[in-house]
Amino acid sequence: MSVTFDLVGTDGAARVGVLHTPHGDVPTPAFLPVATQGSVKTVAPQELREAGVPMVLGNTYHLFLRPGVERVRSLGGLSAFMGWNGPVMTDSGGFQAYSLGSRVRVREEGLQFQSPVDGSVHLLTPEGSIAYQEALGSDVAMVLDQCLAYTQDQEVIRSAMERTHRWAQRSRAAHSDARQALFGIVQGGVFPDLRETSAALVTSLGFAGYAIGGLSVGEPKAMTYATVAATASLLPQEQPRHLLGVGSPEDLVECVARGVDLFDCALPTRVARHGALFTSQGRVNVTSAAFKTRQGPVEEGCDCFACRHFSAAYLNHLLRASELLGLRLATIHNLRFVARTMEQMREAILKGAFSAFAEDFLRRYRPAHEEERVEQRRKRLAIRARVT
Amino acid sequence: MSVTFDLVGTDGAARVGVLHTPHGDVPTPAFLPVATQGSVKTVAPQELREAGVPMVLGNTYHLFLRPGVERVRSLGGLSAFMGWNGPVMTDSGGFQAYSLGSRVRVREEGLQFQSPVDGSVHLLTPEGSIAYQEALGSDVAMVLDQCLAYTQDQEVIRSAMERTHRWAQRSRAAHSDARQALFGIVQGGVFPDLRETSAALVTSLGFAGYAIGGLSVGEPKAMTYATVAATASLLPQEQPRHLLGVGSPEDLVECVARGVDLFDCALPTRVARHGALFTSQGRVNVTSAAFKTRQGPVEEGCDCFACRHFSAAYLNHLLRASELLGLRLATIHNLRFVARTMEQMREAILKGAFSAFAEDFLRRYRPAHEEERVEQRRKRLAIRARVT
Repeated sequence: MSVTFDLVGTDGAARVGVLHTPHGDVPTPAFLPVATQGSVKTVAPQELREAGVPMVLGNTYHLFLRPGVERVRSLGGLSAFMGWNGPVMTDSGGFQAYSLGSRVRVREEGLQFQSPVDGSVHLLTPEGSIAYQEALGSDVAMVLDQCLAYTQDQEVIRSAMERTHRWAQRSRAAHSDARQALFGIVQGGVFPDLRETSAALVTSLGFAGYAIGGLSVGEPKAMTYATVAATASLLPQEQPRHLLGVGSPEDLVECVARGVDLFDCALPTRVARHGALFTSQGRVNVTSAAFKTRQGPVEEGCDCFACRHFSAAYLNHLLRASELLGLRLATIHNLRFVARTMEQMREAILKGAFSAFAEDFLRRYRPAHEEERVEQRRKRLAIRARVT
Repeated sequence: MSVTFDLVGTDGAARVGVLHTPHGDVPTPAFLPVATQGSVKTVAPQELREAGVPMVLGNTYHLFLRPGVERVRSLGGLSAFMGWNGPVMTDSGGFQAYSLGSRVRVREEGLQFQSPVDGSVHLLTPEGSIAYQEALGSDVAMVLDQCLAYTQDQEVIRSAMERTHRWAQRSRAAHSDARQALFGIVQGGVFPDLRETSAALVTSLGFAGYAIGGLSVGEPKAMTYATVAATASLLPQEQPRHLLGVGSPEDLVECVARGVDLFDCALPTRVARHGALFTSQGRVNVTSAAFKTRQGPVEEGCDCFACRHFSAAYLNHLLRASELLGLRLATIHNLRFVARTMEQMREAILKGAFSAFAEDFLRRYRPAHEEERVEQRRKRLAIRARVT
């Protein structure tokens, strides 16, 4: 069985579809939480399912270093290994090798880096990345691309884009697992003509789906959205589109509006562990004094495990007391909020009422709040360390 | 409704009973995991129930400092606050004030200590401890006692015991919540004549149950067991007996054999977080290399959530990668193992087959292993800091 995509409906640029995978169906638009080391931090797979999470993303870089991709293969592949048994996407490992590895060197052959775990030196090639992802047994794999920080220097972006295209061709040629879909990645920074070149080249290679890369790395929001809109419009209508590393509530809505089907990001789970929770009324920080005495749940009417069983006051106490259960409950709440938002968007699109939904939603989720600025700064700094 | 105890059956000194509480029944012998700050670390109440945990113990010292006992009272009491809604025991706060507080001074009036959270100075009196535990709304409360490290100096032990008796009288007089059972504590170190004096005095005050204190603080195992046997035999047959701070598998079996009904201890959950798991074949450390490739569960046939859904190899990976899910799965396994052991003991006692069960069990859980020596050393050091 291979991976296929059905486009079910549209409303303006917004789309509803279903991604069929060997591990199950993924109704789109869909958000994929990040299971960095084979675990969405603090949460069990049963809780992911209960929260309505349809698919997760595993980080090839981390799993390559520990426990090793051959170990994961011998234990049934990532989905079985982590007891999830549902759809899984993997990234190429490039972004993490670039931002987390030591002594990184970008060569034509691939990305050289040193493991922070044991100091060993590795060369991540396009072919290697494909082999690792085939070993991990993900349903959707990504080609290796060259990551850059946000920059206005068009020649730097062009040169990285051209290397990404050569790597895409090598990845395409190396890929042999018919059960696994391979997605190409469109690069080109915030330059419309580069994005056009990149979309034309990458789609000409004929991938099962397309990711939009190189965004949400420090550029202004308006540029992110404009670039997403322009790039999505250049992609084949019948194939799935993934936006890499985007996941704040307002970004999800803004980018579904511009034609994206799939997202992955650590933001919803990371900010949860700092007490920043998403509610229908906007963001709150549950560690603040206002929640110390609140008997009701964090969000009235929320159907998540945390809100059904625990008071906001208890969650406030757990997080202030650094109790691990608090991290879990907060994570579950945000995962459920994001999954519910995706469900609501799907419904609104099918009813032809997406713009009313988006307008209403964005009144409560705009402008970007502190945790998102922190997230962007974090990514920018991680990448800037590599720019020179 | 008040707390009552039914003795259901005996086999030698071993007993089966039921502790009836306003929050539900506790079949005994029973082990209570420690919910230090209103949470059994890493585990949700639903998971405690699924693991067969019948009752938990909250630490009055921690809850007094954060979030405060009046806060807990206003949020429905500890059992509701933590979403457990089952039976709860509290300790007096004395042991933690003594071992964790700064600038501790034992006065006749009570225990003076400085909060490590905010530096404030507090005096924990017998009356105050009762008031705090009434505010927490536990089903079983403990009198304040004076804790000591293991010492052979009989006069030091006697003097602390006598103060404990005066504090027991003051605690008894201060206690007014008819829904809450108050347990007296028998002290006297490892000296049979002091234990006899203490048991006579404390039982004469007429408590709802009796705890055995001052053990498992560094004395040789043989002395622990002998003292438990001697003390238990001095307690009223019809009332429940609790052994404070004991919880390794072999100690549970050895002390049930000597007439104890209830236990509390952080050991099973603490050692789990370091990968030390209890199985029917004895202790294992799941972080060791042997588990890296093990496809089956940590323990074949185990009915815990972790063993039913995850491989030993995955648990090994999670713990090595410091993933919080690993801490949770390991904790759940040990809690289920201990709860199952208590169930098996109950069954064996009712069948009159306890000594065969104990003999078989202790072949796999003797002598004490590393994690227990570490636990004893930890307690001893914490208390020694106060001896001078």
